[in-house]
Amino acid sequence: MDTRIERDTFGPIEVPADRLWGAQTQRSLQNFDISGERQSPELIRALALVKRASAVVNEALGLQDAARTQAIVAAADEVIAGRHADEFPLVVWQTGSGTQTNMNVNEVLANRASELLGGPRGEGRLVHPNDDVNRSQSSNDVFPTAMHVAAAQALAERLMPPLQALRATLAAKAEAFDGIVKIGRTHLQDATPLTLGQEISGWVAQLAQGERHVRAALPHLHELALGGTAVGTGLNAPKGYAEQVAAELARLTGQPFVTAPNKFEAMASCDALVHAHGALKTLAASMTKIANDVRWLASGPRSGIGEIRIPENEPGSSIMPGKVNPTQSEAVTMLAAQVMGNDVAINIGGASGNFELNVFRPMVIHNFLQSVRLLGDGMRSFDAHCAAGIEPNEGRIAELVERSLMLVTALNTHIGYDKAAQIAKKAHREGTSLREAALALGHVTAEQFDAWVVPGRMVGR
Amino acid sequence: MDTRIERDTFGPIEVPADRLWGAQTQRSLQNFDISGERQSPELIRALALVKRASAVVNEALGLQDAARTQAIVAAADEVIAGRHADEFPLVVWQTGSGTQTNMNVNEVLANRASELLGGPRGEGRLVHPNDDVNRSQSSNDVFPTAMHVAAAQALAERLMPPLQALRATLAAKAEAFDGIVKIGRTHLQDATPLTLGQEISGWVAQLAQGERHVRAALPHLHELALGGTAVGTGLNAPKGYAEQVAAELARLTGQPFVTAPNKFEAMASCDALVHAHGALKTLAASMTKIANDVRWLASGPRSGIGEIRIPENEPGSSIMPGKVNPTQSEAVTMLAAQVMGNDVAINIGGASGNFELNVFRPMVIHNFLQSVRLLGDGMRSFDAHCAAGIEPNEGRIAELVERSLMLVTALNTHIGYDKAAQIAKKAHREGTSLREAALALGHVTAEQFDAWVVPGRMVGR
Amino acid sequence: MDTRIERDTFGPIEVPADRLWGAQTQRSLQNFDISGERQSPELIRALALVKRASAVVNEALGLQDAARTQAIVAAADEVIAGRHADEFPLVVWQTGSGTQTNMNVNEVLANRASELLGGPRGEGRLVHPNDDVNRSQSSNDVFPTAMHVAAAQALAERLMPPLQALRATLAAKAEAFDGIVKIGRTHLQDATPLTLGQEISGWVAQLAQGERHVRAALPHLHELALGGTAVGTGLNAPKGYAEQVAAELARLTGQPFVTAPNKFEAMASCDALVHAHGALKTLAASMTKIANDVRWLASGPRSGIGEIRIPENEPGSSIMPGKVNPTQSEAVTMLAAQVMGNDVAINIGGASGNFELNVFRPMVIHNFLQSVRLLGDGMRSFDAHCAAGIEPNEGRIAELVERSLMLVTALNTHIGYDKAAQIAKKAHREGTSLREAALALGHVTAEQFDAWVVPGRMVGR
Amino acid sequence: MDTRIERDTFGPIEVPADRLWGAQTQRSLQNFDISGERQSPELIRALALVKRASAVVNEALGLQDAARTQAIVAAADEVIAGRHADEFPLVVWQTGSGTQTNMNVNEVLANRASELLGGPRGEGRLVHPNDDVNRSQSSNDVFPTAMHVAAAQALAERLMPPLQALRATLAAKAEAFDGIVKIGRTHLQDATPLTLGQEISGWVAQLAQGERHVRAALPHLHELALGGTAVGTGLNAPKGYAEQVAAELARLTGQPFVTAPNKFEAMASCDALVHAHGALKTLAASMTKIANDVRWLASGPRSGIGEIRIPENEPGSSIMPGKVNPTQSEAVTMLAAQVMGNDVAINIGGASGNFELNVFRPMVIHNFLQSVRLLGDGMRSFDAHCAAGIEPNEGRIAELVERSLMLVTALNTHIGYDKAAQIAKKAHREGTSLREAALALGHVTAEQFDAWVVPGRMVGR
Repeated sequence: MDTRIERDTFGPIEVPADRLWGAQTQRSLQNFDISGERQSPELIRALALVKRASAVVNEALGLQDAARTQAIVAAADEVIAGRHADEFPLVVWQTGSGTQTNMNVNEVLANRASELLGGPRGEGRLVHPNDDVNRSQSSNDVFPTAMHVAAAQALAERLMPPLQALRATLAAKAEAFDGIVKIGRTHLQDATPLTLGQEISGWVAQLAQGERHVRAALPHLHELALGGTAVGTGLNAPKGYAEQVAAELARLTGQPFVTAPNKFEAMASCDALVHAHGALKTLAASMTKIANDVRWLASGPRSGIGEIRIPENEPGSSIMPGKVNPTQSEAVTMLAAQVMGNDVAINIGGASGNFELNVFRPMVIHNFLQSVRLLGDGMRSFDAHCAAGIEPNEGRIAELVERSLMLVTALNTHIGYDKAAQIAKKAHREGTSLREAALALGHVTAEQFDAWVVPGRMVGR
Repeated sequence: MDTRIERDTFGPIEVPADRLWGAQTQRSLQNFDISGERQSPELIRALALVKRASAVVNEALGLQDAARTQAIVAAADEVIAGRHADEFPLVVWQTGSGTQTNMNVNEVLANRASELLGGPRGEGRLVHPNDDVNRSQSSNDVFPTAMHVAAAQALAERLMPPLQALRATLAAKAEAFDGIVKIGRTHLQDATPLTLGQEISGWVAQLAQGERHVRAALPHLHELALGGTAVGTGLNAPKGYAEQVAAELARLTGQPFVTAPNKFEAMASCDALVHAHGALKTLAASMTKIANDVRWLASGPRSGIGEIRIPENEPGSSIMPGKVNPTQSEAVTMLAAQVMGNDVAINIGGASGNFELNVFRPMVIHNFLQSVRLLGDGMRSFDAHCAAGIEPNEGRIAELVERSLMLVTALNTHIGYDKAAQIAKKAHREGTSLREAALALGHVTAEQFDAWVVPGRMVGR
Repeated sequence: MDTRIERDTFGPIEVPADRLWGAQTQRSLQNFDISGERQSPELIRALALVKRASAVVNEALGLQDAARTQAIVAAADEVIAGRHADEFPLVVWQTGSGTQTNMNVNEVLANRASELLGGPRGEGRLVHPNDDVNRSQSSNDVFPTAMHVAAAQALAERLMPPLQALRATLAAKAEAFDGIVKIGRTHLQDATPLTLGQEISGWVAQLAQGERHVRAALPHLHELALGGTAVGTGLNAPKGYAEQVAAELARLTGQPFVTAPNKFEAMASCDALVHAHGALKTLAASMTKIANDVRWLASGPRSGIGEIRIPENEPGSSIMPGKVNPTQSEAVTMLAAQVMGNDVAINIGGASGNFELNVFRPMVIHNFLQSVRLLGDGMRSFDAHCAAGIEPNEGRIAELVERSLMLVTALNTHIGYDKAAQIAKKAHREGTSLREAALALGHVTAEQFDAWVVPGRMVGR
Repeated sequence: MDTRIERDTFGPIEVPADRLWGAQTQRSLQNFDISGERQSPELIRALALVKRASAVVNEALGLQDAARTQAIVAAADEVIAGRHADEFPLVVWQTGSGTQTNMNVNEVLANRASELLGGPRGEGRLVHPNDDVNRSQSSNDVFPTAMHVAAAQALAERLMPPLQALRATLAAKAEAFDGIVKIGRTHLQDATPLTLGQEISGWVAQLAQGERHVRAALPHLHELALGGTAVGTGLNAPKGYAEQVAAELARLTGQPFVTAPNKFEAMASCDALVHAHGALKTLAASMTKIANDVRWLASGPRSGIGEIRIPENEPGSSIMPGKVNPTQSEAVTMLAAQVMGNDVAINIGGASGNFELNVFRPMVIHNFLQSVRLLGDGMRSFDAHCAAGIEPNEGRIAELVERSLMLVTALNTHIGYDKAAQIAKKAHREGTSLREAALALGHVTAEQFDAWVVPGRMVGR
């Protein structure tokens, strides 16, 4: 392998010649050969946004010349566009401040900017990773800022659209199936009827609340640590930098970012992410409920509940011909369990800051972004491959509601709870219909029964 | 033991004669002899509020006579005032709908109201647990409603005041100590200086954000399931009941309760509580960070950090004379761990609803209310017995900041990062002061060093 | 309130005259007014066992006279027998070493022993809390020891018996129902048949494995910290004390306790409990699966699966006459969720030791003992009120297995997977029986179908 | 892109021509475009081992010809050796039984075996994915078996060696530093002394217990579901298959695998993995404690504890020259938090089985294997880059122990606890040495003090 020499304050180190990264990235690769989960692309992109915004503000504040600024901006734009993905090889399990990934980005942008200026990479480069790319910054304010930027963007771009789309799909189903009266179930036991549309409307409402929960988490996420530098005091950052760089990031992303009113909180805690993930774990709970309802309602085809049909997407068994399984629900419930596990990891990390810095940062943002991807992609997949194709099995629905003993509740107001209970218990014991039991007991006439026990009038419409 | 006979649809059962509870409570006691954690008093109180509000609305809607209504109201007021605490013996580990506790409240209020009307308890009572006290209601909408009422009140009454008080105490400390320059620490390692006031201001900001997080959870908690009855359709509840009973509960509590726009969501999920507890677990993370900082800063007295002094409240050791421990921090970090554990239990419960009902309700609200108590009481205790007495150890603070090698950062802009690094490394290697190393290397004069390396000018003021 | 003066190194303090506790207990009551969860009675009992054993060994080693020893032993025996329960009022949320509860026990035993010797309580007492009751000990080795003793005893006495009893109940059901062929379900979808006995045998095997898991956790729990005193070095404990006191505790409890080979591990970690609770959370997962299977199999009665009947223990609804719910399953799944939450609290506490001591101890043992109670009592309740009464609904079972499309799997080896699939899909599409579809397609004769598709021959017997 | 047609019971589908996978893999790719976490290589390898063992046993039982068997074996050996890694593109978030990944392996092996026999891939291939590669198997027994095989191998190969190596490194340190007397710390406060070797011996003992915990989890993991086929009854698997295939897997891996005594438990639960991960979360707790102790002991260099030095592996700050951070500890504590999060995900998945199958399997094994990698690699990294280089800072250690007030404990047995306390409190209040305070109070002579207060005699040697 062809190599070149890169240097940091620890001295020279060999780096693959075809790589843009520098000495500190190389050291991290060698010191942290752990498991293989790389820093998320969303985070790398957010770091490049921070570098781009900083370069512009540094120039505006007279700290950097235009040529170097433009080169850094151009290099950052390449990374933002998804180029150079292989230049960010570091794993999550490194220093807890994310310094090594900040330096990875600094090194790649410095070398790339130098090349754009016609200079070399490595020794003699025209742009310096620390003095230029990292100017006015410290890993300690850059990394928390990039976490918030990445998180806010991921919520906006990867979570919200599928959340809203799934909600719309289910809302259309709720409307379409609003006339279909079915048996209700509480405690898994037969209960009074409702419509299939009403049942699904509960899922729609869960998703609407879920969106509200996510939105409530955004204001804190929109506060940025940048400008705090090493410990929150802003040492070595020029006056005005914090506010201007937040404004520039807001401009670049379309998100209402502002500089954090207290930089010590922004750097020493991950509370904004701990809290925002609380909305994600709630969404995971909601999706578990919805996915479970779907698969139970679709269970069978012969020996389950079977009130709805869901799309058959693939063979379900290599041994049982014709078997089809609710696989989209299974994927959703698995990923929801993962989100709940991620929540615990984030809580522990968020609680573990000391003094001026929290050093569980790469782990926290890794889990946060994974949760967003899981929920966002999971909802999109569930929407496209399951929810959109839900259809009622009307014959089965009618069969189950007709034979339900809980329709007896409609008699309460006519003959009283006690006589109604006698009817239900007799029918249950003898395996007859409610009507048969009611007539046999003589509590109602056939005409009364038929007039009073009408499932369609028991659903609150 | 003297007993009387009470009856339900399962038949007669013996109940202690001096107890107000009835048949279903007694059955639950016998069927669920598990561990001993009783339903929280806050929940019982909220159930009594629901019964009181329902009685008033039932009368207003012409469903109940004034005498019975007044008797139920009077009985409920006694329970709300904390009387009859021993009449609610049921444990959390019962039916997951909380039906048995709803019936416990119905039975106690019915018997008590009967007595207030001059009637007997038990057989022949003048007020019926189901037909009167539970009128227009079902456990399935009563219990979720009481959960929201109890949670919202607990947040307002038991969490917010100590949260605000602790924040005020710390804000006063932050202001008082704002002139005290101390060493910063990142990664537990010496870093550039800040003031003790700045450090504490980070804690204050965490608590301010924590309050914002809790407030963001309230709108969902203020939506009440009442009016949904058995499965959410409102079967057997009169028109207008849902809206009026929410308004009555709002009037009684001063909280802006409204009827839930979708009763199916309100009964089939616990999402509002899952989400609200996300704010509590975030507060637990914040308090862990604060309590840990306090105990580390107070560590020693001779061989730790020792920058602050905290109140000495009790002997710390039976074997080591004079030992004093940061016990308030220990209580806080323990209870914060409990809150994080409670969060997981709540998440699992919240995710486990099926169809028209979530049946993990008593467990969910038990954990929620415990978390509120733990955090609220813990913050009050920490405030009174620790935070209020925090004092700086100024001699120690000055000693540590003076000898810090990270003051070298102030030279960066004068002699460059590389020469500054040489100075720090030489001083570290040889155990000398920065000043000695700087002069020995000849990078600065004594006058320059003294003019440039001034901790008080490095804190961003 | 009548009071007396008690003293510690912080000076005098008023204590209720009728209480046996002393100064440090009183201080803790005042300093830790948090939430109200008291230290578990099992832990208090274990502490008394430690004090009793220590007294005997101290006398044997010539450190204490016989009279005082006998008085301490007698006082401890009273506490072990459950007397003086109100004398241990301290909450879990105190110092993380449990020192205050150790002192509570020391103070109560000293005052009670003094009285047994004819002396006073408080000033002038004949037995000293520290010098006598706590002799050769430190809270730092006493409390971890009591945690292990309490945990090991709770597992033996409160968990194992109901675990074994439930397993026996289910094993009897598995045997009784071994001839009942029913439909299998995977992914909630109809699958090939098995017997009801086989299905239940899986639950039995889960419980057998669960017992094995618990047993594998005992050796570490049987190692005791006592003898390590303040930091693990055994300062001020006489030679031989550690080994003899472990032997004495083994004798008293019948558990094979030994002195921990490394006292630093035993005091600075809670690893034995973190690990042992890993067996409990596994049991919680097993019980969740079992309880869920039971309630789904019993779902209905008309519109669910309905393959088994479970005891009807109480009315299930105040609005729906005759409704009966699977409440024992609900209690079990709720408490299992709690155990999983407790596990997280314990993990966080267990991970949070520093240097020579873990100070999350009261929280850890509180959760551990609660989990034991929840699982033990929950299994006992589930056994008595549900499992023992499980009965097959044979008509329903036969109906469901007969109409299953997955019986087609039996044709694979005769006509091939593809033709079998055609049959299943045709029957599913057209709503006919497999037999009808098979004959219509002409793949088999009626005689062949009847000879080959025999559910009872598909269950591996 | 060049494609070919593959078929399953859902019909034809286009597959990239250069890929070995088939129709069901392709469908899963299209239906489950979620987040991107692929099934672990360890799991793919274990599935190939299962296929290899099954082929051999199928031949031995007369179900398969030798040529086909040899081709399957050769193809499986290629996968086991790590070839064809890109042929297994499916993500974790698919069907919860892992059927799609089982089919992915079946398809790749069938096509590859066909090629090895001189046949084509796809249409007309000489080896069938279901009929040949999956013969005598069902995904429902194959996948649980592969989970156990992968887990047991990962524990043996990736966890145990670094665990033992780190323990050996620390044991050597414990021995080397056994003569270095240092201050003890409990509650973060100064306590009586111990040796640095003793302190480290506690970490060694934690790792020894950790190894014991892992070993205790192996017997259950060594039980294999294979032979249970679709629902546990073994339908379509020949007699003897289960036992022989377990023996063959034992032979291939060197692990004592046996056929599970109850296949229903093995397929319907993940209890063995839930339990085994309980050992991993305990190890995570232990490593958190160890890594935290290391970084606190190394904190400073000037304003922390500073009792040990750890290797300086990389620059710690871009703004503070000479700053070095405890980055290995940070990586370890982050990954330990992840393992604790993974534990929760596994618990939820493990609890969520229904009837004859648990369908949270890919998520469970994904988390399990990640935890093994994190802990194993993390311990290896911590060993090589931190633990091996731990050195005592003897001057600092001596300074801190000398000035400790807790040495006063040595006077207890000579002058009593009360006078000792007076000395400690006076020294603390006045900032003097214990010796000065002791002499000033006149409780001891200088000779007595020097004879009695000898830290080296307080460490239990």
